[in-house]
Amino acid sequence: MSKLRFNITMSLDGFVAGPNQSVENPLGVGGMALHEWAFPLAAFQAHGEEGGEVNESTPVMEGMSENVGAGIMGRGMFGGGPGPWGDEPWNGWWGDDPPFHHPVFVLTHHAREPLELGDTTFHFVTDGIDSALEQAKDVAGDQDVAIGGGASVAQQYLAAGLIDEFEVSVVPLFLGGGARLFDNLGGARIELEQVRTIAAPGVTHLKYRVLR
Amino acid sequence: MSKLRFNITMSLDGFVAGPNQSVENPLGVGGMALHEWAFPLAAFQAHGEEGGEVNESTPVMEGMSENVGAGIMGRGMFGGGPGPWGDEPWNGWWGDDPPFHHPVFVLTHHAREPLELGDTTFHFVTDGIDSALEQAKDVAGDQDVAIGGGASVAQQYLAAGLIDEFEVSVVPLFLGGGARLFDNLGGARIELEQVRTIAAPGVTHLKYRVLR
Repeated sequence: MSKLRFNITMSLDGFVAGPNQSVENPLGVGGMALHEWAFPLAAFQAHGEEGGEVNESTPVMEGMSENVGAGIMGRGMFGGGPGPWGDEPWNGWWGDDPPFHHPVFVLTHHAREPLELGDTTFHFVTDGIDSALEQAKDVAGDQDVAIGGGASVAQQYLAAGLIDEFEVSVVPLFLGGGARLFDNLGGARIELEQVRTIAAPGVTHLKYRVLR
Repeated sequence: MSKLRFNITMSLDGFVAGPNQSVENPLGVGGMALHEWAFPLAAFQAHGEEGGEVNESTPVMEGMSENVGAGIMGRGMFGGGPGPWGDEPWNGWWGDDPPFHHPVFVLTHHAREPLELGDTTFHFVTDGIDSALEQAKDVAGDQDVAIGGGASVAQQYLAAGLIDEFEVSVVPLFLGGGARLFDNLGGARIELEQVRTIAAPGVTHLKYRVLR
């Protein structure tokens, strides 16, 4: 069964990006430190590079892309500021060969033609989270759909009761402000079950299933 | 060396009490569910009672009171509403034999004579967190001082750089509002190190040391 899931790294005080996010500083002040647990991992490094660590985080990192047939992300995570795309739209942070290798549906208020970069095609969806999910499930088939972020996209799908499972990688860090992951859930009744806990250097991975 | 530490149970969205805390509902709406992991434990139940579970949470529960010589808590956790104590002050939620068995320093804006209940004496401190800590360390000697809560007391000691270590028991629950533990830390630079992660039924215990 195809699942909707996400894996996101969060500070101990609940932020997935620091304060004052900008085009120059997409993860906000201090936000890059969230991902220090991942950088040394062989599983994180580009294909073909030598070296890199293998530790308790390795199966988590490898699992993120396993059995994923399509992705969904917010405009902010795709890259660039908000607002209309303009005549020469920027192609995002992801470079010529984005690491997704499957179609990615970008939630935005501004229509744009699909963008093919390497073997990743970005589709820009202007009619909301249900439409993005439907399109992503169509292309994913039996595989899962992964939400990349940011916080508000994960929140919207959680509050709508559409997430099947998620993993939060909690790092021993206080950001003190920024984008809080588990916020704006309103009165949504979301029942959770702990699935897996992995302690690794500089991070603890907490995986949950949403009960229905 | 005597340490200042706390162990507190937190929802996955970061709350240690639900919304709308009141004298009738001290943990706020839904807040009692935070502690469901603890109730079945033999280590939680009153001395002399039979039965109760032993599981991965047992060493955490037992460790909470080990080597603790004094406690500090906020007025809200002692019990009763805010404001002056009145002529017949209420003696809190803790009954005739509070579970502390050591002196407890209660932070309040309203002076009051010490209150002895069983082998626990509550001292009411009106001159701030530094004074409470100094008094608590004096009576604790080589033993540790444990902060009971609530959130704002833990925050004040964290922001002041006075905490040595803490354990957060994260439960798979969204409260959606209430008293957020890691909030109001301002620009305090607090460097943390992961000490221990324990996955247990219905809870994950995350222990950190504050680096200096």
